[in-house]
Amino acid sequence: MRLGKVAIVGVGLIGGSFALALKAAKACTHVVGVGRDPANLQRALERGAIDSIAQEPGEAVRGAELVLVATPVGQLEKVFTALRDGLEASCLVTDAGSTKRDVVAAARAGLGPKIAQFVPAHPIAGAEKSGIAAASAELFRGRRVVIAPIAENAPEAIERVSEAWTTCGARLTRMAAEEHDAVLAAVSHLPHLLAFALVHEVAQRDNSAQLFAYAASGFRDFTRIASSHPEMWRDICIANRDHLLAELRHYARTLSSMERLLEASDAAGLEKRFDEAREARNRWLSGEYEA
Amino acid sequence: MRLGKVAIVGVGLIGGSFALALKAAKACTHVVGVGRDPANLQRALERGAIDSIAQEPGEAVRGAELVLVATPVGQLEKVFTALRDGLEASCLVTDAGSTKRDVVAAARAGLGPKIAQFVPAHPIAGAEKSGIAAASAELFRGRRVVIAPIAENAPEAIERVSEAWTTCGARLTRMAAEEHDAVLAAVSHLPHLLAFALVHEVAQRDNSAQLFAYAASGFRDFTRIASSHPEMWRDICIANRDHLLAELRHYARTLSSMERLLEASDAAGLEKRFDEAREARNRWLSGEYEA
Repeated sequence: MRLGKVAIVGVGLIGGSFALALKAAKACTHVVGVGRDPANLQRALERGAIDSIAQEPGEAVRGAELVLVATPVGQLEKVFTALRDGLEASCLVTDAGSTKRDVVAAARAGLGPKIAQFVPAHPIAGAEKSGIAAASAELFRGRRVVIAPIAENAPEAIERVSEAWTTCGARLTRMAAEEHDAVLAAVSHLPHLLAFALVHEVAQRDNSAQLFAYAASGFRDFTRIASSHPEMWRDICIANRDHLLAELRHYARTLSSMERLLEASDAAGLEKRFDEAREARNRWLSGEYEA
Repeated sequence: MRLGKVAIVGVGLIGGSFALALKAAKACTHVVGVGRDPANLQRALERGAIDSIAQEPGEAVRGAELVLVATPVGQLEKVFTALRDGLEASCLVTDAGSTKRDVVAAARAGLGPKIAQFVPAHPIAGAEKSGIAAASAELFRGRRVVIAPIAENAPEAIERVSEAWTTCGARLTRMAAEEHDAVLAAVSHLPHLLAFALVHEVAQRDNSAQLFAYAASGFRDFTRIASSHPEMWRDICIANRDHLLAELRHYARTLSSMERLLEASDAAGLEKRFDEAREARNRWLSGEYEA
């Protein structure tokens, strides 16, 4: 892939890693970064993730062939609006948002008649770390990226954006925004909410210091995602509120049925569920569900 | 520490690792193993975890100075009963159960007048793997082991059992059985139940193959403990039923409050909780709560 100028709006873990990966592949001639935090942009420059800093999105995208918008989901409409006028007709825009319906809505509102230039994407490359310090050219290597095209996208636009993600090492699949949001609510957004809730619960207790003192590796891994970026996850939860609420209520019913098994001291019933869960997880780990 | 014969009842991950650690420290002259699965005992022999195999617990403990009972919690009373007659007055017994009140009750029922020889212990060295294949002389290195003495224990008995665990590399703390079970319900047993419940829930869906296909590293770590041993966790849940039910109901209320924040699209309220959870977890990771 040969790109000229690439603009990154939001040079954090995802934006920085995208830039580093394209540069490592020598797939572009120049990367310009723009964002809210000047110190962060300076670090991105020092790390070589970006070659220059723009003062605002409209300036950054001027003359660019590809734009990645990788800010928290809640800022997207403002960002799309800010970059619209500077966007040339040949320039494509992609994103990295963990939700897709709201991103498409924000892009429609912000980009207006230029909406066909936007090809939504979601790299499923979670890391509880955030910021440019955690960025890596290898972040997307072998990871799944969902491309969620909209009706207005030309096939060539979808292909070109897909190629950029492939150049970063990603494995691509296509999915409609609605389906994407339903699937991710179940296997990503709900677990994050559950992990945040457990740590918050333990932290609120009078004996929280003692509880944490006896928490071990099981607790550490279960709650790893509770070290995720609070603002980002706030935005994801609000953006995917309907699907997440449905999953949360579903899970609450599952916990109620666990509670009934415990109340009844139904050892066989508990073991059956644990066993089925372990078997399913082990099948998943063995790669049985690879798409 | 210089021990003669050590008997291991249940030569799985914990029993095998205890044996390997004592042997690596040259702390005993002979290890005899006993258990339900002849093939597993044969593997333990081949790995050098044990030097001989006994046919039943009463035979295994004859002439031993120390016995570790490391079977699933549900079998303990039967095991304690089986080893009572063979137990010499100078022999001490410890265990590795994840719950302590029920183990003490099983030991009282099974050991009868020899109860003072039993010093309860819980190595907090979780691993979702099980069986002798996963055992390691290093499993307890730097890990916390809770010693939960009973009223009948002589100080020398507590010291001697503590020394065996220290020889395995563990860091010891003492705690009453009741307090131990309450603390572990919150930071270990509840997370296991939550992880099993989530995987079971996903596995039951019509589109479970698709859901698993988009599950990523966050899901993998959150659910790691759902690959734990079903029979062991069934026994733990039943044994610590009262504390676990209290924690489960508490957590259900926490989820209800999360649900209300989502229903109200209360972004600030969600972010505050996520932020407090992340801060607390990061303080824990930095070692602030080390006892």
